[in-house]
Amino acid sequence: MNKVDIRNLLQKVKNEELEVEAAIDILEDLPYKELGFAKIDNHREIRVGCPEVIYCEGKTVEQLKSIIQYMLTKENNILATRASEEMYEAVKTICAEARYNPLGRTITIQKREDPLTASSYIAIVSAGTSDISVVEEAAETAIILGNRVEKIMDVGVAGIHRLLAKMDIIRGAKVVIVVAGMEGALASVIGGLVDKPIIAVPTSVGYGANFGGLSALLSMLNSCASGVSVVNIDNGFGAAYNASIINQL
Amino acid sequence: MNKVDIRNLLQKVKNEELEVEAAIDILEDLPYKELGFAKIDNHREIRVGCPEVIYCEGKTVEQLKSIIQYMLTKENNILATRASEEMYEAVKTICAEARYNPLGRTITIQKREDPLTASSYIAIVSAGTSDISVVEEAAETAIILGNRVEKIMDVGVAGIHRLLAKMDIIRGAKVVIVVAGMEGALASVIGGLVDKPIIAVPTSVGYGANFGGLSALLSMLNSCASGVSVVNIDNGFGAAYNASIINQL
Amino acid sequence: MNKVDIRNLLQKVKNEELEVEAAIDILEDLPYKELGFAKIDNHREIRVGCPEVIYCEGKTVEQLKSIIQYMLTKENNILATRASEEMYEAVKTICAEARYNPLGRTITIQKREDPLTASSYIAIVSAGTSDISVVEEAAETAIILGNRVEKIMDVGVAGIHRLLAKMDIIRGAKVVIVVAGMEGALASVIGGLVDKPIIAVPTSVGYGANFGGLSALLSMLNSCASGVSVVNIDNGFGAAYNASIINQL
Amino acid sequence: MNKVDIRNLLQKVKNEELEVEAAIDILEDLPYKELGFAKIDNHREIRVGCPEVIYCEGKTVEQLKSIIQYMLTKENNILATRASEEMYEAVKTICAEARYNPLGRTITIQKREDPLTASSYIAIVSAGTSDISVVEEAAETAIILGNRVEKIMDVGVAGIHRLLAKMDIIRGAKVVIVVAGMEGALASVIGGLVDKPIIAVPTSVGYGANFGGLSALLSMLNSCASGVSVVNIDNGFGAAYNASIINQL
Amino acid sequence: MNKVDIRNLLQKVKNEELEVEAAIDILEDLPYKELGFAKIDNHREIRVGCPEVIYCEGKTVEQLKSIIQYMLTKENNILATRASEEMYEAVKTICAEARYNPLGRTITIQKREDPLTASSYIAIVSAGTSDISVVEEAAETAIILGNRVEKIMDVGVAGIHRLLAKMDIIRGAKVVIVVAGMEGALASVIGGLVDKPIIAVPTSVGYGANFGGLSALLSMLNSCASGVSVVNIDNGFGAAYNASIINQL
Amino acid sequence: MNKVDIRNLLQKVKNEELEVEAAIDILEDLPYKELGFAKIDNHREIRVGCPEVIYCEGKTVEQLKSIIQYMLTKENNILATRASEEMYEAVKTICAEARYNPLGRTITIQKREDPLTASSYIAIVSAGTSDISVVEEAAETAIILGNRVEKIMDVGVAGIHRLLAKMDIIRGAKVVIVVAGMEGALASVIGGLVDKPIIAVPTSVGYGANFGGLSALLSMLNSCASGVSVVNIDNGFGAAYNASIINQL
Amino acid sequence: MNKVDIRNLLQKVKNEELEVEAAIDILEDLPYKELGFAKIDNHREIRVGCPEVIYCEGKTVEQLKSIIQYMLTKENNILATRASEEMYEAVKTICAEARYNPLGRTITIQKREDPLTASSYIAIVSAGTSDISVVEEAAETAIILGNRVEKIMDVGVAGIHRLLAKMDIIRGAKVVIVVAGMEGALASVIGGLVDKPIIAVPTSVGYGANFGGLSALLSMLNSCASGVSVVNIDNGFGAAYNASIINQL
Amino acid sequence: MNKVDIRNLLQKVKNEELEVEAAIDILEDLPYKELGFAKIDNHREIRVGCPEVIYCEGKTVEQLKSIIQYMLTKENNILATRASEEMYEAVKTICAEARYNPLGRTITIQKREDPLTASSYIAIVSAGTSDISVVEEAAETAIILGNRVEKIMDVGVAGIHRLLAKMDIIRGAKVVIVVAGMEGALASVIGGLVDKPIIAVPTSVGYGANFGGLSALLSMLNSCASGVSVVNIDNGFGAAYNASIINQL
Repeated sequence: MNKVDIRNLLQKVKNEELEVEAAIDILEDLPYKELGFAKIDNHREIRVGCPEVIYCEGKTVEQLKSIIQYMLTKENNILATRASEEMYEAVKTICAEARYNPLGRTITIQKREDPLTASSYIAIVSAGTSDISVVEEAAETAIILGNRVEKIMDVGVAGIHRLLAKMDIIRGAKVVIVVAGMEGALASVIGGLVDKPIIAVPTSVGYGANFGGLSALLSMLNSCASGVSVVNIDNGFGAAYNASIINQL
Repeated sequence: MNKVDIRNLLQKVKNEELEVEAAIDILEDLPYKELGFAKIDNHREIRVGCPEVIYCEGKTVEQLKSIIQYMLTKENNILATRASEEMYEAVKTICAEARYNPLGRTITIQKREDPLTASSYIAIVSAGTSDISVVEEAAETAIILGNRVEKIMDVGVAGIHRLLAKMDIIRGAKVVIVVAGMEGALASVIGGLVDKPIIAVPTSVGYGANFGGLSALLSMLNSCASGVSVVNIDNGFGAAYNASIINQL
Repeated sequence: MNKVDIRNLLQKVKNEELEVEAAIDILEDLPYKELGFAKIDNHREIRVGCPEVIYCEGKTVEQLKSIIQYMLTKENNILATRASEEMYEAVKTICAEARYNPLGRTITIQKREDPLTASSYIAIVSAGTSDISVVEEAAETAIILGNRVEKIMDVGVAGIHRLLAKMDIIRGAKVVIVVAGMEGALASVIGGLVDKPIIAVPTSVGYGANFGGLSALLSMLNSCASGVSVVNIDNGFGAAYNASIINQL
Repeated sequence: MNKVDIRNLLQKVKNEELEVEAAIDILEDLPYKELGFAKIDNHREIRVGCPEVIYCEGKTVEQLKSIIQYMLTKENNILATRASEEMYEAVKTICAEARYNPLGRTITIQKREDPLTASSYIAIVSAGTSDISVVEEAAETAIILGNRVEKIMDVGVAGIHRLLAKMDIIRGAKVVIVVAGMEGALASVIGGLVDKPIIAVPTSVGYGANFGGLSALLSMLNSCASGVSVVNIDNGFGAAYNASIINQL
Repeated sequence: MNKVDIRNLLQKVKNEELEVEAAIDILEDLPYKELGFAKIDNHREIRVGCPEVIYCEGKTVEQLKSIIQYMLTKENNILATRASEEMYEAVKTICAEARYNPLGRTITIQKREDPLTASSYIAIVSAGTSDISVVEEAAETAIILGNRVEKIMDVGVAGIHRLLAKMDIIRGAKVVIVVAGMEGALASVIGGLVDKPIIAVPTSVGYGANFGGLSALLSMLNSCASGVSVVNIDNGFGAAYNASIINQL
Repeated sequence: MNKVDIRNLLQKVKNEELEVEAAIDILEDLPYKELGFAKIDNHREIRVGCPEVIYCEGKTVEQLKSIIQYMLTKENNILATRASEEMYEAVKTICAEARYNPLGRTITIQKREDPLTASSYIAIVSAGTSDISVVEEAAETAIILGNRVEKIMDVGVAGIHRLLAKMDIIRGAKVVIVVAGMEGALASVIGGLVDKPIIAVPTSVGYGANFGGLSALLSMLNSCASGVSVVNIDNGFGAAYNASIINQL
Repeated sequence: MNKVDIRNLLQKVKNEELEVEAAIDILEDLPYKELGFAKIDNHREIRVGCPEVIYCEGKTVEQLKSIIQYMLTKENNILATRASEEMYEAVKTICAEARYNPLGRTITIQKREDPLTASSYIAIVSAGTSDISVVEEAAETAIILGNRVEKIMDVGVAGIHRLLAKMDIIRGAKVVIVVAGMEGALASVIGGLVDKPIIAVPTSVGYGANFGGLSALLSMLNSCASGVSVVNIDNGFGAAYNASIINQL
Repeated sequence: MNKVDIRNLLQKVKNEELEVEAAIDILEDLPYKELGFAKIDNHREIRVGCPEVIYCEGKTVEQLKSIIQYMLTKENNILATRASEEMYEAVKTICAEARYNPLGRTITIQKREDPLTASSYIAIVSAGTSDISVVEEAAETAIILGNRVEKIMDVGVAGIHRLLAKMDIIRGAKVVIVVAGMEGALASVIGGLVDKPIIAVPTSVGYGANFGGLSALLSMLNSCASGVSVVNIDNGFGAAYNASIINQL
């Protein structure tokens, strides 16, 4: 609501085309629209079908169930991350088409099937088979947000030829997610080979001095390749959310 | 060089349209093109005018000078980061149009003036006046890479109205760089207000338990806003390089 | 017991109004009263009804039960923190009116119902639904210490309009407790919007690089807003105890 | 500006008592008043004479000088923290009555001499003589914010009788700042002896495993005494700002 | 075996009082006696009855049982630390007089009842009731090593009068063990009140930013009181072993 | 495939000794041979019998079983590390001769019995009995890679004579693996006594401030003995793999 | 002042042998005598000649000078640690016999020459020549506190024979200080060879991952030898103070 | 000196072929030969020409000069690491042929020119130009220890084609040293491409979250490639010493 909108509204009140009480209702919300509710509105208009995302960690099964019950009254896709199998069982009782990814620990309810970005895709590249749960969380997130996804798994730098054999599909993406634990070197190597935005996800996979993902995190932050930015350890969801914004620019 | 290219080349050799020695020259480079030199070639074709970036830390004035002397024989813009004033004095003796940004500690030699992305821009938002050197490094980098830049400085969350007054210009950007030290909260707040990719740069500004930027770094990695990815502490260059890739998609 | 008290006592001995043995009993405790028991006496006089607080972690059910049995002989409210459900079952067998808050993990036995501070209140603001157990521990503590409490939950900075909509109730408090995990930015944002003492509680909620609450802790310590002080990670009790002292000044 | 205010304004427009353009001016600012500028207004009304505080670290002498030049046009006290002697020399050229505390590294320009809180005071207690610069920063801040201050120095726990001899003056304060490096035990000991809000400031004073103040910081956060909250390492300013809010409640 | 011993031995060989083969046996062992076995010999002579200590963590029940079976053939007291109840059950089947301390998690088999140091004793002082398992491990160790022990528990600095009331018994000890978690301030306070060697044991007791005992550890290392040395976190055994050496000097 | 090879190939095409399609097949693979697949080929030729190593952590029993089923079709030894007993049970159903080391948590399937390096051996020295699982992982790895192994266990520096008694067998090795937790001093002591490459493995064995192996890790990295290099915490496999390369030089 | 003393005093008041005002004076001081000042009195009587120790870090030359001027009026030895050469020059102007140890950075003024403990001595053992400044600080402290000292330097574990050659003199001490940087292994090795209390001082000497002494500190805390306790990094003074208490038991 | 040697010696004493005093001299040293001096003897016999290495950090110019003066009386090469230019100037006055490497900060005095290992060589590979000082320290060390060296610089993974172009020379080495800062990914990539022992040296080169080399250190320790072991941060000397032992096996 800009200066012109306000002038029009006031003119209508003056011309008695608009009741004072009706104008109050509109103007009273004005601050919030400038700051916050306006953001949500934009979201509704711009990201049609954008799912409300539920972070399940620390929620009870009952809490999750009632949140989803409410969401089902809307038209959007639904994504729940870090969901347990038990949570899924509860959700299924209120929504038969809910789907569970046990590796990625996601519950998804997809109402619109067609990807928003058929022409471009997000590549999700991972270093080892142990990173799979993060890859799956990222993939489920990206898909539910309306993106096409290509997964390239187990191409860690210890056998770099495996990576090189897949460079075509990686270079073809609009944005690349790199998932790696241990020393996280994969992000730097891909960063040196492609000219696309790279979102690196350190994982907590590894022996002792991995320190819960710290080694991969510091590696990726210190990447000598310039096009790499980083999200939190094991945060497949965050990487995919970022990638989706870029892919849909 | 794909299968078809190889067939054509071999056919020419067979038809004696191409000398064996000439074919050797082409094929001998083949592996590297698949892996590495091809990358550089693509760079030449796609990012015309992309400057070679020189990281000055740990280099002598003489080393820097000879690198730039060589680069001046090419057509590209030149960017040197973390450059001292003394380095700049040396560079000026071989290139009068070199420009120095003492806050950002960059030397730039700009051969092509027109931004590549006149229609879209990168917003660089900073929390406090002390973050200025990182902002300047980011801005110089973004500009030399061919982007239009808008700087919004000193809008830290302790006086959030200052930030809100600038939301229009931030929301108008294609990609947003957020520079903040101390608790780095600015990234999360902006992340909750705009729907653009946000690249957060933690800075080493702050009192004791800032631990050289660690507090802002962890804050940004743990941002509750989903569209935030992070680069290294004080790495204005890296943030701008990332932003440039996205801005030029 | 001040100079005047001592003079009176001695005068009574001199006047044989007081037996030597009786005076011994009183004076023998004198040192402790100046240092320690005196503190307790002041407590009795000033904070009437102040509960003795029991930190249950590391105690057996039997130990807890016998401590509470002893306390029930006094007039004060009783608060036990970090109590398990099993502990509560045991306490109920000796005190039917004991109340358990399963989220906050507190047992409370409230003998006096009326808040000491009806006119002012403590606002407890939290960033996300996952911080709820810390909020509940803080709320139970504040109430048992005789304060009125207002809880404002799930107003994290990623959707800042939710927070802004609640500013009236936050600004109305005499002291504000801010509970937040992840990047803990909420403390800084509120610190910039209200002019009341803010006690920040970092929580251990979050993904990998949260490092058990370290990210929120460092954030809050480095807050760019000046009115913020910090207690230990997940220490809802400590925050409420602090807030209570201030609220009852 | 509440519902009633808006109704009155609209009524005036309807009654043609107010021009549309004048109403636009008022309503256009509405959001900011609800959020941010209103905060500043409240500040002006409530904390009359509250100095604008300048954090000098990372600012040039010229920047500082021009900020103060501007501030001198207002009626408020001025405080600059982390100021060098060189900065002070520059400030003196534009304001002869500026005062420099070389230990606390503060520049203060005091326009109103009378403390706002003559009846109550802030006690600043420090463990050792090496903590003096933090004590001085805190004291200068508290005074310029209009508080009476009592300093009790060098009463570290290694000679606890020194502390006990000063308990009267500490107990008499409305709020207590405890400044301590090394193991920071002073905060806990005082926390066990007084029933006032205690704001602890860890300092970076100490041998090797002090790790720049980390030992005192962790100590204070883990204080077994319940009334202790903590600010950043060496942050005398922040502690005093907090104490001032509480002292002036 | 010193120069004189060797001369005597050689003289005996020369005088044919000693067979060459017998001399070989003695001299062949010489190196080890100088380095290692000599140490064991000294142990046998000096610390008669010194128990062989078994650290149970990482050992199987069977391993422990067979080690103790072997030890029972000797005359010494036996101490097993970090022992589970299950281990104790197994040990009881081979040694009925074995005693288990479930708090300290020690198994002890005491063959000689009389303390070696009846005249002097070790004081074990602890801050809170949660430190009890470390206190018990220390006490069991000290007793089995032949020391008299006095335990003073729950005298943390938050209620310093409790500590002061017990100073006589603490001052009477020849060496003092201080066990404290959280901020570990007790070590410094006692260090300032007694003139005996103090061995501080940080414990892993506490809320979040205790970081597994790190806060108490750093506190104690940075103690402003000069007579404090520190052992590992929760290492009640090590503290008692140290104290025993000093007590028996 | 070098310059000469390419010339010969092209000459054959020119002379029509080689079909164009056949030449395509060879040249098309050229890049990969230079980089990656060639590496694998070299491996096959050079390290005949080198087992494919499977890191079981994070894999399901089914995944492991199908990987081993595939491997059994080849001639090589097989090693699976970090394998659970349950995994072993599953593997036994498809390969009766599979062997499980419950301490080292390895599954091995050895097809060729004779060690490749009968003349030289790897010494694996450990400080305490608690390090045994790492020793066993290292030993199983070294043996399956074709090395002779000598284990010297429980020779920690607290009883250095035990170590000195075994120096002959340690000095006789071609390469020495030192496994130690706690303070990891054993690596330095051996490093000062032998003139062979020493690979140190820190273990996560120890009390509190061991911090999951950090103490031993830092110790070993800071060894004052010059011939020591370090692998990850608890990484017996990595140490043995390294040692095997050196032993087979 | 015990129960009997109080009874006597009261009896005198009752018998009018003592004025009420005089009794007030005595009783009013009672608390402090029980707690703190009494401690100082004991100190004066027991540790006659104990020097007041001045920690110079963070003090000005003038402050130091006036402290020493005051101390010179007493009979005690004087020790100032972490003193600069400039400080020494200033002290010399008021006390010609002051002595400076430039390696240990101590100023000492010794009034009584004879060691208190001629019959026993403290051994100070160091690993490398770079640890010399800590050794010197410890030695000066021990001597000024009245102990005989033996220094054994440069016997690090990388050449363990150097250490073994000196075991006699180490074993002869009543208490042993071990000073070591890098991996700090020396403490464990000596701990395994002698049966005396060992006080370990980690030093900040070393390459990168020494992290300012952290590696040696953690090593020593995790020592597998049981008789080792630890003081702060580079804290030669603290080690010697501890050793002196033990040596003079 | 084995059993046979001792028997012969004793027989000679018995036969009076050897004086008792002469036998004492030999036997008195026996222990040390078994433990320590024997090591030195082996060194003399086996590593002829091995330089005594002097670590200059923390030594005075005078100390260094007198150490070298002594060493010049022997036949060995001399290496001083971490030497300043000023130290070199002093050394030149006593040994004209001393050579200084200002990047590697080494002083070398080479008496024997011919490499001991002409047939094999050590490859030293570095990621960036900023790692050069570590490379030079490693190279000087390896050469003075008698090895042939090949340096391959600036082949970081961000431009992996540069590395691939140099694989022949890297694969040709007997042992490979990899020097890298930032994320240290180079070690893993080379580890996946060659089948030689790789010694990784993390360097302290990099932006903020490099934390003095911690990022590269953790990366290398967590390398997914199996043949990588690690030395301390910036420890070029240690890496070369290790490599030399392996190269000369």
